[in-house]
This record gives sequence, C-alpha cells and structure tokens, in this order.
Amino acid sequence: MSWQLVNNDRNEEQLLVNESLFALGNGFLGVRGNFEEGYSDEKKSVRGTYINAFHDSTEITYGEKLHAFPETQQKLLNVIDSQTILMTINGRQVQAGEAVTMERTLDMERGLSIRVLSWHDEEAGKTTVTFKRLVSFTVKELFVQQVEIETEREASVHISMAVNGDVSNFSDPDDPRVASGHAKRLTIEQVDAGDILSVTCRTYESALSVHCSSKSAISVPAERTVSSGEGRAEEAYSYTSSGKAVLTRWSMYTDTYRHGDQLEQTAARLLSECGSFTEAEEAQHEYLKAFWKDTLLEIEGDPELQQGIRFNLFHLLQSAGRDAVSNIPAKGLSGEGYEGHYFWDTEIYMFPFFLMTRPDTARQLLKYRFSLLNAAKKRAREVGHTKGALFPWRTISGGECSAFFPAGTAQYHISADIAYSFIQYYLVTGEKAFLREYLTELLTETARLWMDTGHMKDGVFRIDDVTGPDEYTCIVNNNFYTNAMAQYNLKWAAACWELLEAKDAQALNQKLELEEGEIAAWKEAAERMYLPYDEKLGIHAQDDTFLQKKVWDLAATPKEKFPLLLHYHPLTLYRYQVCKQADTVLAHFLLEDTADEATMKHSYEYYEKVTTHDSSLSYCVFSMMAARHGDVEKAYRYFIETARLDIDNTHQNTKDGLHLANMGGTWLALVYGFAGMRVKESGLLFRPVLPKAWKSMSFRIRWREALLEVQLEKELVRYEALEGSLTFKHHDETISLKLGDTEEIPLRLS
Amino acid sequence: MSWQLVNNDRNEEQLLVNESLFALGNGFLGVRGNFEEGYSDEKKSVRGTYINAFHDSTEITYGEKLHAFPETQQKLLNVIDSQTILMTINGRQVQAGEAVTMERTLDMERGLSIRVLSWHDEEAGKTTVTFKRLVSFTVKELFVQQVEIETEREASVHISMAVNGDVSNFSDPDDPRVASGHAKRLTIEQVDAGDILSVTCRTYESALSVHCSSKSAISVPAERTVSSGEGRAEEAYSYTSSGKAVLTRWSMYTDTYRHGDQLEQTAARLLSECGSFTEAEEAQHEYLKAFWKDTLLEIEGDPELQQGIRFNLFHLLQSAGRDAVSNIPAKGLSGEGYEGHYFWDTEIYMFPFFLMTRPDTARQLLKYRFSLLNAAKKRAREVGHTKGALFPWRTISGGECSAFFPAGTAQYHISADIAYSFIQYYLVTGEKAFLREYLTELLTETARLWMDTGHMKDGVFRIDDVTGPDEYTCIVNNNFYTNAMAQYNLKWAAACWELLEAKDAQALNQKLELEEGEIAAWKEAAERMYLPYDEKLGIHAQDDTFLQKKVWDLAATPKEKFPLLLHYHPLTLYRYQVCKQADTVLAHFLLEDTADEATMKHSYEYYEKVTTHDSSLSYCVFSMMAARHGDVEKAYRYFIETARLDIDNTHQNTKDGLHLANMGGTWLALVYGFAGMRVKESGLLFRPVLPKAWKSMSFRIRWREALLEVQLEKELVRYEALEGSLTFKHHDETISLKLGDTEEIPLRLS
Repeated sequence: MSWQLVNNDRNEEQLLVNESLFALGNGFLGVRGNFEEGYSDEKKSVRGTYINAFHDSTEITYGEKLHAFPETQQKLLNVIDSQTILMTINGRQVQAGEAVTMERTLDMERGLSIRVLSWHDEEAGKTTVTFKRLVSFTVKELFVQQVEIETEREASVHISMAVNGDVSNFSDPDDPRVASGHAKRLTIEQVDAGDILSVTCRTYESALSVHCSSKSAISVPAERTVSSGEGRAEEAYSYTSSGKAVLTRWSMYTDTYRHGDQLEQTAARLLSECGSFTEAEEAQHEYLKAFWKDTLLEIEGDPELQQGIRFNLFHLLQSAGRDAVSNIPAKGLSGEGYEGHYFWDTEIYMFPFFLMTRPDTARQLLKYRFSLLNAAKKRAREVGHTKGALFPWRTISGGECSAFFPAGTAQYHISADIAYSFIQYYLVTGEKAFLREYLTELLTETARLWMDTGHMKDGVFRIDDVTGPDEYTCIVNNNFYTNAMAQYNLKWAAACWELLEAKDAQALNQKLELEEGEIAAWKEAAERMYLPYDEKLGIHAQDDTFLQKKVWDLAATPKEKFPLLLHYHPLTLYRYQVCKQADTVLAHFLLEDTADEATMKHSYEYYEKVTTHDSSLSYCVFSMMAARHGDVEKAYRYFIETARLDIDNTHQNTKDGLHLANMGGTWLALVYGFAGMRVKESGLLFRPVLPKAWKSMSFRIRWREALLEVQLEKELVRYEALEGSLTFKHHDETISLKLGDTEEIPLRLS
Repeated sequence: MSWQLVNNDRNEEQLLVNESLFALGNGFLGVRGNFEEGYSDEKKSVRGTYINAFHDSTEITYGEKLHAFPETQQKLLNVIDSQTILMTINGRQVQAGEAVTMERTLDMERGLSIRVLSWHDEEAGKTTVTFKRLVSFTVKELFVQQVEIETEREASVHISMAVNGDVSNFSDPDDPRVASGHAKRLTIEQVDAGDILSVTCRTYESALSVHCSSKSAISVPAERTVSSGEGRAEEAYSYTSSGKAVLTRWSMYTDTYRHGDQLEQTAARLLSECGSFTEAEEAQHEYLKAFWKDTLLEIEGDPELQQGIRFNLFHLLQSAGRDAVSNIPAKGLSGEGYEGHYFWDTEIYMFPFFLMTRPDTARQLLKYRFSLLNAAKKRAREVGHTKGALFPWRTISGGECSAFFPAGTAQYHISADIAYSFIQYYLVTGEKAFLREYLTELLTETARLWMDTGHMKDGVFRIDDVTGPDEYTCIVNNNFYTNAMAQYNLKWAAACWELLEAKDAQALNQKLELEEGEIAAWKEAAERMYLPYDEKLGIHAQDDTFLQKKVWDLAATPKEKFPLLLHYHPLTLYRYQVCKQADTVLAHFLLEDTADEATMKHSYEYYEKVTTHDSSLSYCVFSMMAARHGDVEKAYRYFIETARLDIDNTHQNTKDGLHLANMGGTWLALVYGFAGMRVKESGLLFRPVLPKAWKSMSFRIRWREALLEVQLEKELVRYEALEGSLTFKHHDETISLKLGDTEEIPLRLS
C-alpha cells in the first residue's frame, strides 16, 4: 500500500486536490492529474501542463511604487495541452462522473498513474476504460498516455484527441488571489495536423517558444481523421469492435531554453525514437528502482507514514530542475501557486536531500543559482548597494519577482542561504574544482553584500533592516538567523581564499579584484557579528527587539483565525511575539556550533510557544530540534504533520500545488532529525534516536565516493558501507568503514 | 509688489507651475490657473476645476495584497469645466502664445487674477484682451469671469464658451506617477443649453453628482447662439464693433454633498441672485480686507519674502474646507497631487494658523475629523485592534487610502496629531461645549487605540512597529515622536474626564462605556511611556535603534541623488541614520515640556546633520527650533526656504499643486518661530527674536475674545490688545492687557 496513493473521490474539492497529488513530472515537464475527458457539471479544474522555468514577464501594478520595486514579474505558464482524450461508446460520452466505479492510483514505485472507469452499458455490457500516463524520467520531453477500452459486446467507439495551444493560466473570479489578469500569455505560432499533431506557441513578452508534437496508435482497425483550427490540432479514431482496444499516445514537449530553434525537429526525432508504452513503462521502472534503492528510506511500523514519505520523495524527484535554467518551484510542477518561482525553499529545505542522495542534481541546482550571480549584482546596485550580490527573494530567470518587499526583497538571508548550500556541497563532496569555479566567487560576492549591508558600531557588526525567515516580524535589526548565516558566509568567504591553490587564487583575483584588507574585514565582521542574546531567558533573541514585544495569546485565538496572516494586518502581527515559522530555531539547526546546548534548548522551548506553524516550512524544523533536544515523541508528532501535509491537505491549499519545501522537510526530519545527521566542518556526524511507534527506520546517503546505509532499530543503530569507504562520527565516537563493513552500536537513551 | 504675483512666462514648464500658483479657490471650489483659450503648440496642461471632497472610489491594485490593505482609494475629481472662452477677432484666434505681450497677475489683496493680452492687428489696430476671474469667498458656488475686448478700429468678434462635462483627471503616459487609469470617472447625466448652460455629471462608484450652471452677458449688441452635444453645452456671441466690449460669465457649482438633490435648482437660484462682476469684485475685496486685517503679518525689509508670506496665507485661505465633509487637501484645490487627500498636514502644519486667526474655520476642520471617528473605529477593528480609533493616514471620506502601509497606515501618530489639535483648540478657546461634545470622546477613542497598540513591559509602556513622521525610517519600535504624542494624548484623555462636569461625564459615559480602571491605566501608560534617550549624545533617540545605524554620508551624496527616495530602495534608506524630515525635532517643538532645554538643543543639532529636508514639511520645523535655540540667522535661512518654495518651484513639482503644509509652516515659522509663541497648558507664551535682515515684523492672533497685535522691532516687542483683554507670558514675565493697552518690552538677545 505504501507504494501507491489511491483516491477515488469525485467531489469537486478533492478532485482539485487530486490534480496536484496525482501530478506527474520529471523536473522539466509537469502534467497535473487532470482527467483526459475533463469533469462534468462545470466543476472547477486547474488543467495544467508546465515546463520548468518556461515563463512570461508580466507587469506588476502597485498602489504606490517606490524606487527599485520590481516592474515585472515572471510567471510560469500553463503550456500546450495534450492531455485531452474524449471518447464515446455507442454514442455515449465516457465521463468519470458517469462511471459506476472509478479507481485511481498513483504508482510511486513505477512512476505512473492509472485510472480505471467501469460501468455496465446496455448495449456493450460490462465496459472498462483504463487510462495510464507517465512523464518520462529518461526522455524528459515525453508525456505518454495509454487507454485500454474493453467492452463485453461489440460497440461503436469514437475517440478524439487534441493538441491545444489555446490555453491560459488559471484564474478564478471568486478568489482574489488568482482573480486578476495575465491569464493568457501565449500566441499560436503554428498548428499542423497530419500523421503527427503539432502546435507551437510563443510568449507575449519573454520571446520564448514552446512546441508539442503528438502521435498516436491504436491496436484495432480504425478510421483516423484529422483537423485543425483555433490553435488546436485534432485527430480522431472510429471503430466498431468487441473486447479490448488499446490506444497509445506520445506527446513530446520542446522549448527555446532547452532546444534553441530546433523545437519541431527535435520533437519529431524524439517521437520517431519512441518505443511502446510498455517500453516506456519499463524504462521508468528501471529509473525509479535506482532512485528508491539509493534513497531507501523505510520505516517499519507505520504504513501511512511510509506512504507519506514515499509520496514526498517521489514528488521531490519529479520537481527538481536538472538544467542550467531551472530549479525547484515552490509548488514543484504540480500547480500554479507562487507562479512557479524559486525561493530559499530549495537551498534550505530541498537541497540537502539531493545533496546526500543525488549529488549530480544538487550540483545542477547550484549551477543554476550561480548563473544568476550577475543579475544579483545588478539587483544590489539597483537597491543602492555599492558592491556585492543580492539574490532575489523569488525568481525564475534572475529578476526579483517579489511585489511586497517587507516579506520579499527584505529577506536578505536568501543570499546567505545560497552561500550555505554551496558550502554544504563542498563539505560533502570535497570537490576542489567546485571551490575554484563556483564556491569562492559566490561567497566573495555575497560576503561583499554583507559588508555593504551591515556596519561596525561600538565594536560589533550589525545588520539593520532586514527580514528573517519569520514573515510575522518584518524589517528588523540584527535578526539572529540573518546575522548568524551572514557570519558563516563571511567566515567561509575568507576560508575559501585560503583553501585555494595560489595560482587559482591569482586567476580568480583577476576577475574579482579583491581590495586590500577585504578578507581581513570579512573575518573581523564575522568575529564581531552581533548575535542578540537575552541573559534572563538564556536564549538568542530573534532580533534586537523581538523579546520586548507583547506575546500573542495563541491559546485565546479562535481556530478560525488561523493562519493569522489571513485575519490580521501585518502591522498587528509585527507588533507581537508571534512567529509564522521557525527562525532562530532554524538557525540553531543549520549552525549548531553558534550557540551552546542550553541556549539552543531554551530557544527551542521559548520559540515553540510563540510559533503558529502557519508556514509549511516550520514543522520539520521543530521536529528536528525536538529530536536534537531529546524529545523524540514530540519530534514524531511534528514529523507526522510534515509527512502527510499534502496527502491529507492539512493546509487547505494543496489544490494550488504541492508544498515541496515541506516534502524536503520530511526527509530532513528523518535523516537530520531522528538519525541526527549533520554535515559539519569536521565531517559527517550522527546522533540517532527512534520514535517509539517504529520498529525500525533505514535510509541511505552518499558521502564522497561512499554509499552508506543507516538502520535504526529499537536498541541499536547499524551503519553499513554499501559502496566505497568513509569515516564519520556517532556522537563523539569516530567510525571508519570500508566497503562492506558494518558497525552496530547501541542507541543512546536521550 | 508684495500684494501681487506677476509671471509672464509662456514656456511649457512655467505655464504648468503657474496653473498651480494662479489657482483660485474658496475652500469649496478650486479652479487652476489655466488659460481660457488653452495653450497652442500642444503644450501640456492640467486643466482642472475641483470641488473639495468631491471624489470617486477607485480600485487599488497590489502586486501582493495582505489582510486589511485598503481595497479602494478615493480620488478628488476634476469636475465640469467652465473656464473655456474662445475668441476670434477678424477670424483670427485669440491665443496667449500668439499675443505680443501677456501680463499675468494674481492679486492677493483683492482675490482675483488678471491676464492682459495685447498685440497689433492689421485690420483692428492695437488690440487688448483682458481676462479677469475670481472664485468667490462670499458665494462659495460662484466662479466668475470677465473679458474686456478692446480694438482700436472696428473688428468682427466671435466668442464661444462651453460648460463641459466630458472631463478627465490628468494622466501623463510619460510620468509613471500619473500614467495609469482612473482618469475618467464622470458620466453625463444632463446637458442643457438655453439662457443658461448647464451640465450635471455623476461619479461611477461614489454616486455623487456635480452640477454647473453658467450664464453670461455682453455689453455690446451681439448675436447669441447656443448648442449642445457630447456632454457640453455651448453658447456663442458674434458682434462687430470698435472700442471696448465686456463679457461677463457666472458659473455656479453645486454637488450632492452640499446641495442634496437640489443641484440645478440651487444653481439657478444663485445665478438669479448674482450681481455684476464689479459687485462680485467688491464683495471679494471686503472679505479679504477682513482676512488681511485679522492676520496682518507684515515684515519690513524684505519685499520678496513679504510676497511669499502673503502668497502662502492667501492659498491657505483658498484651500481650507469649511463644511462637514471637507478639510484641506495636501495640495489645496490647486492640483491633483496626492489625489486631493487629507493628511496630518492639516493638524500639525495648517491648523494652528486657522486656530489663531480664524477659529470658526479651525472648529469646522476639527468637526470634519470628528465625523470620521466611527470610520476610524471600524478601521482599527479591521487592522486587528480590539478597541480604539485608528485614523487613516490619507483619506477624503474616512476610508484609509494609503496603498503602501509602511509609510501610510503605519504612521499611527496621525491619531495623536488629531488629538493634539483638538487639545490645542480647547486650550485656545476654553470652550466647555467643545470639551463635552468633541474633545473627550475623541481623546477617549484615541487613548484606547494607544492602550491596544502599546503594552507595559518591565515597567515602561512601549509602542512597537509604527512609523514616525520621518518616512526614511519605517516600522520601528518606540518612535520618540509617536510615544511622546501618545503620552500627551493619554494624559489629556484622563484630564478631560476630570474637567467634565459630573452630569456631562455621566451622560458621555453612557455612550463610551468606560471600563473599571481605564482612566487609571491611561495615566499609568502616560507616566511610564518609554521615551528612548541616548545618554552619551544627550538626545532623545528617534526610535529604539535609530542611533545604532550607519550615518548616511550626505556630504558625499551627489546633488542629483536628491530627493533620496527617487534614487534608493526604501530598505537602503531605512538602514541609515538619514531623515526625510523633522521627527524628534518636531516632537520637541510640539511638546517642549517633554524634554529639557539641553536635550532639545542637542537633538536639534544632531538630527539637523542627518536630515535631507526631502519633504516640504521639514524646513519650517528646523526654522522654529533654530529660533528656539537662539540661532536666529539659521532660522531665517530655513524660513526663506519655506516662504517661496512654490513661487520659486524649489521642489520641482509645484505643477502638481501647491505645498499647503509648507505654507502653513511659513506662518508657524514666523509666529511660533521668530515670535516664539506657544500655546501651553499654562496659557499663551512668547519668546520673540528678530532676524537681522528685517526692520520689523507684526502679526495678529486671536485668544479667546481678544485680538492681539504683536510688533517685533529691532530692539523691542510691542503687544497691543486690539479687541478684548488677555493675559500671557513674555518669557517668564506675565503680561495682562486690557482693550487698547500696549506693552513694550526690550527684546532679549539670545
């Protein structure tokens, strides 16, 4: 059961949620789990096909626009639709809503979804229609569908399919968040209907083209007709037969970013190379076998959680961009929420999973960020900085897309978050080339930003007027998270230049033109970084004045007032000690050597009381820190909230797309939380614990050339080197394993 | 010369500026100084007629909209145009651009403007056309024009006039600030062309109607024709004559707010009661005689400054609403800048002039604010307050119209500013009825807001996350200005209940339902109000952390980077010690008993160094405080900046309308600055000084039943009771004057 998600609901609300849950993708292409035939009864649907990073620019309108507010936004576009397959059997429309039974399955082991409709037809007898679809991991351009139509007696069947370029993004006049314009951003460039149906569209402003070519085959003799018009190419089959007929349909998507001006040619070539549906299915299964083998992640004792974990990892895999222009949208490729933008979610919540299990993908994610460095330098100048790089809070192609700077541009920490993930990559892989080609330059430009943002005053380095991760407290001075992350950034920027070989340092200096004393200034700023601390409470203060504010009375706040941001003006929220999400506690997770154990524990306890978890980025952090501080059962309760957040639609907005950062957070909670893993400057570390409810938990990670399996059982932990050899710490104990070695150690009671 | 403003420039830029400078108004109706015939050469023009508070609602679009962001804005509308008078003489169009000479005069003594065009016509010989216009102070609905046409020889003259309802607000595609929509907000309801031309229009959303009826008369036999169409009613005269012909045109404006559903009837009645232009001129002159007599304000020794002062007072008089629905727009009725909204500008910068010279108008301005109290209570709930009234930062009819809350809604101090002006009114007039009917209720509801906004922590009362007057530092904790003003508000709220007679208190309590201990809590909050103070600098800190920030290097900032807000992202500005305008220094002016002399002087010196005066509300405050602290010559230099700011267009945006707050500031700088006047709880006080450049300065103010004249000369000050009797202080000396008494006192050298 845990390999599959089954949901047979046909009510409007769950259907919308299922469109996200059953979305298929491969990091390049994403197709929402819509029905081929659409819904009956004018039910709402977000019918969507997306190509990662394929966007248009749209104007941002402000009531009052100030200097350097972004003028345009990028918006991930719903592209050409090739999902549609309409059928009549004996003249009667095939509709899920009409079928007697519908069984719908997302198969995470094999990477496809299956939907079976069945009913009794007066003429044709027992009738079953089975839809299968997959978005290929091995041919990224390919979306392939198969329909099996089986009737008991002879029936007359008509099937029609379209490639439709006349598409829009979702807008809903009933929902102010998605009510406004910019829905239609594609013009039709070309439509063809022959052996292959094909449509090419172009964006209004960003001058990108997208193409879809589609071909089909049917297993029974049938009459085929084609037609075209209004941005659509259509084909239809008619046949009369009893028993089973199988239709297969291959659709290839190409775009300017990945295929230059060879959109149609590439699609045609790829179509010509396609094998059968079964072959595609097998390739998909092989690919996923490797994925599941490398990540493993099994828990014994809770199949529902196991299902949630698989679901979350599967969608992470489906969502991660693997090329130079794309990253991981906050909602993956499963919906239009957050306009397909990339946030810090990638670096802090999702990157570690890829780093430890699929370092090639991790590297690609970093290369994407690195490619934005020039845009980030330009943005820093616009805002008023004389040096350094300021990464945009949300973006696709590098421009700042946040239209509300207090919880957008002001989140300067994203630059340090990106720096942090670059450092983590280096710590895990030890790649010297990475140090030389990416790490040093990125850290130098972000360190420069901190030097220009902060300043030394009375012997401490202060960073004023930024927003930390907690969006219920904006524009503050000396946000602990930001200062601590900037400190790490500055320290490592200096360290990089010392790690570089002399000739590499010289070459890089040609480009980056270090000033006299610049590195020394970074070190000094890092050493003297102001990290606000409250003696009385024994905790780090979230910022200069957070602890002076009124404490929000969460217990007295009615349930329907959550999430608070939908019920209170931001100023009211800012005025209280109340957090949307982990902030100081997240800093303690990422940088555990910045504070002592007691401080981290007190901070965790203090901030827990004022945190609403209105952000889906919060639970996993509290789960990890609960585990860190010995409260395993609370860690488990927080973990549960992450594992099934989308499956159970606990945030009530899964219809807009999945919460990818939370999905990454599930893995973090397991590996960094229960297994207590840390990647430190001194190497890899584990401090494992196991919740009572589980019999065991196991997972695999890569560390340089090694593949390590960790199995946690009730009373012991077993480390096994499945590939290569490695050295790491279990608490304070150093463990070295050679290929095939196994080490069993009793679990400490916390 | 100082009674007149003359400007004969005909270049596009100055013409636009002159449209504001030559605007005429009476607090109800405002007409920009456009040319009757418009401009040639497609020169830009903001052709405008405005009725105070006559607005439509327009939608505010946000890139990202959060809870309780206002959804609509109010916009002062350009209403029906009755300025247009077109003429041909011997078939040739009369155009200022074509005339050989143009002389244009604003006569502030008589309250009208005159424009004389003259040239030599081949057939008609020497030709002169003289336009006069006035907006009546005695019949508020009346705009009256007179045109004298004089030709040397016989000429054929054609005159056409329109009442045009097909009007829009100004928009300019070249200027992003005024480029966008919402320009056209009136639909035509009715057009008539008979003896009277009349047009009625209605707003799209606010359901207000405006009407204009116009009639004309000409002194020579002429053929009259009328026509109508497209929202316009037109009439024309044709005649052939030599010598002089005089056309008079009366236009009456009525609107729903002031005339209910009797728009046309009222206008017709008023038109029927109209006398000649000369009679209107005389009534206007009489009205202004009284105005100038009561305010006096003369300086000897600087005619240019004297002109600036007269100009500023004249426009204050022209701009102040005198009825229950209107107030003083930030740009008066002279332009469309700030959408005709009312800000704190009224209470803090303009109200004192009216309070001390025209208490009836002052009272009316307060009654307008009082009428918004329910809206302010509603707004407080929207934002998240459980009690109290939060006044909108900018509004016409009571709804918050600020689309950028960090420098809008967050300026909570406006509620205390309004409270302050109510208290000042009470101190000056001593009206017990005002205490009972307005003051106590307003102070109670604003005090409640402060109690709900701030909180007691470690024995001090703190107010977090507000913005003070300085918009270069937003969303801060314990802004000194806000806290000090809130303290005064709270203290006086408590005092009011003690000043009330028992039966009045009881009656009011029925309505306001004081809670047990509520007054005591106000007193305690006031006593324990946290007023951030820096021991080392010996100054009050602008807020909790202002003095911890980097100091902006103003000397190193190139001139073209000012005003800073047009060149730096707000976050960059927030991050520095740099002020757009007086903040702490303003608090010291308003509440001089909150700090000792040394602190105020140090604050003045400190903040002066970090203030750009990018706001036109800044100079007057620094002028007053320079005078207060004995630097009279610097006070004089700041004063000069205020006195001619619009005449000399020093802020480069006078075309959008006049800077009314600065105009009030000119009067403040003279009376509160040089004459050192204060209205204190202990009574009226003067501490006069005189700049070297002046021989003398005199002015008059009202204090209860008294009219006091103050004459400052080189070495003495003369106080004279022109009406009634009064007691006041000159420094520490108590002076009592009976009607006709004069007291001369040597000036102190500072």
